[in-house]
Amino acid sequence: MFTKFKMAWSTLMLSSMAVLPQALAEVRHEIQFPDIPGYQTIVADFHTHTVFSDGKVWPTVRMDEAWREGIDAIAITDHIEYLPHKKYMIEDHNASYQVALPTAQQKNIMLIKGTEITRETPPGHFNAVFIKDVNPIKTPEFMDAVKAAVDQGGFVFWNHPTWKGREKGDWKDIHETLYQEKLLGGIEVLNGGTYYPDAHKWCMDKGLTMLGNSDIHSPSLRHKSEPGEHRALTLVFVKEFTQDGIKEALHEQRTAAWGQNKIIGHKEHLGPLFDASIVVSPPHHKAGKSLWVEIKNNSHLTYNLKRTGDKGPLAITLDADSKVLVRIEAGIGKNDLRLKYKVENAFVGPEEALAVTLTIPR
Amino acid sequence: MFTKFKMAWSTLMLSSMAVLPQALAEVRHEIQFPDIPGYQTIVADFHTHTVFSDGKVWPTVRMDEAWREGIDAIAITDHIEYLPHKKYMIEDHNASYQVALPTAQQKNIMLIKGTEITRETPPGHFNAVFIKDVNPIKTPEFMDAVKAAVDQGGFVFWNHPTWKGREKGDWKDIHETLYQEKLLGGIEVLNGGTYYPDAHKWCMDKGLTMLGNSDIHSPSLRHKSEPGEHRALTLVFVKEFTQDGIKEALHEQRTAAWGQNKIIGHKEHLGPLFDASIVVSPPHHKAGKSLWVEIKNNSHLTYNLKRTGDKGPLAITLDADSKVLVRIEAGIGKNDLRLKYKVENAFVGPEEALAVTLTIPR
Amino acid sequence: MFTKFKMAWSTLMLSSMAVLPQALAEVRHEIQFPDIPGYQTIVADFHTHTVFSDGKVWPTVRMDEAWREGIDAIAITDHIEYLPHKKYMIEDHNASYQVALPTAQQKNIMLIKGTEITRETPPGHFNAVFIKDVNPIKTPEFMDAVKAAVDQGGFVFWNHPTWKGREKGDWKDIHETLYQEKLLGGIEVLNGGTYYPDAHKWCMDKGLTMLGNSDIHSPSLRHKSEPGEHRALTLVFVKEFTQDGIKEALHEQRTAAWGQNKIIGHKEHLGPLFDASIVVSPPHHKAGKSLWVEIKNNSHLTYNLKRTGDKGPLAITLDADSKVLVRIEAGIGKNDLRLKYKVENAFVGPEEALAVTLTIPR
Amino acid sequence: MFTKFKMAWSTLMLSSMAVLPQALAEVRHEIQFPDIPGYQTIVADFHTHTVFSDGKVWPTVRMDEAWREGIDAIAITDHIEYLPHKKYMIEDHNASYQVALPTAQQKNIMLIKGTEITRETPPGHFNAVFIKDVNPIKTPEFMDAVKAAVDQGGFVFWNHPTWKGREKGDWKDIHETLYQEKLLGGIEVLNGGTYYPDAHKWCMDKGLTMLGNSDIHSPSLRHKSEPGEHRALTLVFVKEFTQDGIKEALHEQRTAAWGQNKIIGHKEHLGPLFDASIVVSPPHHKAGKSLWVEIKNNSHLTYNLKRTGDKGPLAITLDADSKVLVRIEAGIGKNDLRLKYKVENAFVGPEEALAVTLTIPR
Repeated sequence: MFTKFKMAWSTLMLSSMAVLPQALAEVRHEIQFPDIPGYQTIVADFHTHTVFSDGKVWPTVRMDEAWREGIDAIAITDHIEYLPHKKYMIEDHNASYQVALPTAQQKNIMLIKGTEITRETPPGHFNAVFIKDVNPIKTPEFMDAVKAAVDQGGFVFWNHPTWKGREKGDWKDIHETLYQEKLLGGIEVLNGGTYYPDAHKWCMDKGLTMLGNSDIHSPSLRHKSEPGEHRALTLVFVKEFTQDGIKEALHEQRTAAWGQNKIIGHKEHLGPLFDASIVVSPPHHKAGKSLWVEIKNNSHLTYNLKRTGDKGPLAITLDADSKVLVRIEAGIGKNDLRLKYKVENAFVGPEEALAVTLTIPR
Repeated sequence: MFTKFKMAWSTLMLSSMAVLPQALAEVRHEIQFPDIPGYQTIVADFHTHTVFSDGKVWPTVRMDEAWREGIDAIAITDHIEYLPHKKYMIEDHNASYQVALPTAQQKNIMLIKGTEITRETPPGHFNAVFIKDVNPIKTPEFMDAVKAAVDQGGFVFWNHPTWKGREKGDWKDIHETLYQEKLLGGIEVLNGGTYYPDAHKWCMDKGLTMLGNSDIHSPSLRHKSEPGEHRALTLVFVKEFTQDGIKEALHEQRTAAWGQNKIIGHKEHLGPLFDASIVVSPPHHKAGKSLWVEIKNNSHLTYNLKRTGDKGPLAITLDADSKVLVRIEAGIGKNDLRLKYKVENAFVGPEEALAVTLTIPR
Repeated sequence: MFTKFKMAWSTLMLSSMAVLPQALAEVRHEIQFPDIPGYQTIVADFHTHTVFSDGKVWPTVRMDEAWREGIDAIAITDHIEYLPHKKYMIEDHNASYQVALPTAQQKNIMLIKGTEITRETPPGHFNAVFIKDVNPIKTPEFMDAVKAAVDQGGFVFWNHPTWKGREKGDWKDIHETLYQEKLLGGIEVLNGGTYYPDAHKWCMDKGLTMLGNSDIHSPSLRHKSEPGEHRALTLVFVKEFTQDGIKEALHEQRTAAWGQNKIIGHKEHLGPLFDASIVVSPPHHKAGKSLWVEIKNNSHLTYNLKRTGDKGPLAITLDADSKVLVRIEAGIGKNDLRLKYKVENAFVGPEEALAVTLTIPR
Repeated sequence: MFTKFKMAWSTLMLSSMAVLPQALAEVRHEIQFPDIPGYQTIVADFHTHTVFSDGKVWPTVRMDEAWREGIDAIAITDHIEYLPHKKYMIEDHNASYQVALPTAQQKNIMLIKGTEITRETPPGHFNAVFIKDVNPIKTPEFMDAVKAAVDQGGFVFWNHPTWKGREKGDWKDIHETLYQEKLLGGIEVLNGGTYYPDAHKWCMDKGLTMLGNSDIHSPSLRHKSEPGEHRALTLVFVKEFTQDGIKEALHEQRTAAWGQNKIIGHKEHLGPLFDASIVVSPPHHKAGKSLWVEIKNNSHLTYNLKRTGDKGPLAITLDADSKVLVRIEAGIGKNDLRLKYKVENAFVGPEEALAVTLTIPR
């Protein structure tokens, strides 16, 4: 009698398609960082999880989030070995990539194939990105797994090194072996809400690439990225915005980790990034020996400046994506006025703040 | 050589447990509605999805959201038949309930077992809640499915009736049959962002229970519920806050649908709810014939009042969880001053606004 | 005995100066509108009040607000005649300008000297801006006041014409006289939260300049201007950003009124403004006959598009300062794809929406 | 010819009145603090400025702000001596009170008459509140001014004592004299964004009343008070909410200063305030030796708890106006479980955190 009410999947599928354009209409707010001479600046998250390991979202959600939050490139790096949902899910370590890819393509998010090789600390957890097939990386021996990833052309980095404590997470023989055999490309100096100064030092000492990643497991509640309210990310300075372009930049250490109102990177990148972010206007008002000057920060990082020279305010906060007004006690001379500062939240070494000059045009 | 680095799951599991208290520390903001005489007022969502059908989150996420958003009771109602993720997941229609239950217990969320019986329109989609085992409800014939749900003690309601258009979604023979055989308990008058006036009318005419539900598929981006920024929900007026207490209230039509800055329910519930929400203070200032009065709204619904009597401002907006100031042109007599209004966003019938009285104490 | 504790004003003054740099550090968020060919786009408010008439703030506060809200040029236009605070204040109609000027200079806000000539409706209220001395404009006869303002080089416009009702606020003989004698330069088509369609029509018909102003009396509670949360403002398309440059633009009707999620102006300005605001990327994904395209809106106005041609989504909302994703059902041809739309909230006539073309590059 | 357009002030006045009800409709969000046994808890600001001294707003604005921000009682305390606007304003030190009073009455804000007696440091700045006439307090000698205030029944307190540095702002002979002669009632331990630990110590040692005030000069940009985003305020524990009731509480030191996410007061008030703010529910879930408990904080202060006993989480943050979930490792015994904590941001002495007990009902 009720056969007319039998299930009609194709119809349901189509009706689901019908609402697609609306979902697509969600808004993206770009993360703003200027390019630097020779390189385009892009923002990437190389460490995220989905229901296919211990994450809490379907892989497409990571693409929706990347769109909303202004992220350019992202890797899903589900654990190969730690599978708390395996009672309910088939085991195919390429599945999260496959599921996410069509959404990534529609939303113009660069999706990088990756995985997390997960062992007790030490050696700890390692991400392999730019790999081709996750399944062969599931091996009993840790070194075999890393080698399999590198054999596929993968870039391998050590995640949140000291999260189990300074002793357990120290640079051990196994890390030295990885490093000597050129299997280790980088380390997370920033993971979620935590900065790892040891990792920072190791990267500087050994020439390893610095990464900052979210390691996100839950859904992101962000409607957009805002100054001070964005996930930990890696800035990548690429020659071209392609998968190969990003991989080349990772191998050449052209990255900076960004989060916790800090940026961590190399002087040769952060210096030009600061200079490209900041516009100092000529003085618009003069009274006695005082000059009034506007300084605009076109980036999404708030720069905290402390005076190192003999002129200018003792401290200046250059708020992200804003303009501030500065009064300078320094008559007007013949030449541009050069004010020396250090950026207290731009680290070009474990204890070293980036030195910058604010040039006030005559 | 590297056997010491072999996978150690138990350790990983434990380390995952170690971060549990932190996750538990997330904050809940209660949704505020006063109780009404004889009944406790609770808020429930009887329609949500997870990765086990076409939702985008792991079932525990729905519990995390309910905690944050101040929701008291929730049903996960994954489609039995529409399973777009089935390539990747085992098929067990009780799984989403089982997965969510421990989190629900820890977070003190009442988790109601449910499912969505999904057919082309007509008859359309129906939710069964308070059921015991979802698997037997997967039947080829629609009526068999509904009967199986009711046989288990389930309460069955029709979802978003006219979402495929007024004609397809009309009250047809199949609905009449369900109704005559006492298989249909209620209808969604509100689903997500859409109000269904036809459903409202059918509920009033036939004595069916009115529901308002989110039908949420994606992660919720809400940090908390706020006036005007909350999911569609059902207020349930219960004798006791237990599963049986909610079921009894559903069978007795003691509900109201809340969303889109509207509340839809019965006069005998919305009248007392308004009276319990509002506190009118005695006049604190008098000048000439003017009285100044404070009116506080202790609920999370903004009441939009329009004058129906001969005194008082023509319109008053009683903002949610706020106090407003009203000037009344009406000297002071011997008796309390009674101002007649209708609440334009409280519907006690398809075209009928709730009539209320503001009593200004002498 | 306590003479050492006598008042020491100079010290107090200095200590007050000492905190100035901190106050200066407040952050400015620019309002974003692109320049159009031949003209720089600036934002101005030609109608504000202070304690020197019936406003509630000291004149410097209007400069602080302009800085924070990203406003480029502002006039304080205190009533000459309506002085409810006169019991407490000296009467000098140039005082609010004098008091505000030093702060304006420090904060790089262009302060335009102005006043409001205030009569019952009709004729109503009129602002004179770019005047030199307010005091001589205080005359018993209305026409004398307007003439005095124009004699000083002032630009006079009619404020909120129909705020006392359509009849009282109609175009009367007095307005025709002002117009014929070339004393009237423009009309507010937007004042605070109200749009005046009659004023819009009169401006179009008679070649009068359209203005949008805040008429702010209370303190502004805005920390910054945001899409949908900014004061009513006038966009001015200037040849040079000087007082003369703005005055020239007002005389040449190169303005647009912006507020209430609307923009009202001339086709020859709003067309180029839209084109300069929007960047349509080449399709980044193709599947079947579908193209996926990103559209970025670099302005602070959300454009609501409705399709007038035969291709493209029926409606597109181009959110302010955001990027949206659009799926277009239209295979790929040899040529750029041109989609015809009208901007429903850009008015180039009382009932006329701006026509635009979205060009999808091949 | 144009005599009909002559100024008509009475009409303007009336039209201004006509918009009053709308302005009144602004919304108030109450600051939430529970009453404590024997006393009603109210919130007051005893230190604010207007255009009548060096403030930036008309006096009525302070009333509008108090209404919006949920403040119960407020004093306008314009400087008597420091009058930077005097070129433009008549000199009547009672004017700001007179101007504000009608708005205070309409908005049900208790307006306390006050002034600031302003001398170089030392002695510094002092507020006198609950005075009758400000003009006689303008005297050349500082002691005469204080005596005049006290003679009127005023309560005098020392403002921001060490704002000019620890040395200048120390407790000097003049302060000892004031104290010995019972002219000094209290000290600001909190002024705007600054906490004064020295003042805190002096209050504890000498039995002076602790105050927390905004000292606001600019307009407040707050739409409402929120946890962590409210002005510095004084909680007053009154027997009755009248001017006399507040004065009695000030004289009896029944106050607490609140701001900067701190509360500073006496153990006998802060202990009961904490207990009245917190509701600990019976465990809703038990698993092994773990109990899950909900703790609700009904106040607008976030309490930061640190464990001092042997059970319970090491730290608990009880967010303002929220509920948190706590897991306790402590089986279930026969008796209520008593957990010992200190509230790290509730100071009952300069270095002394409030000790509290969380009682988990069996």
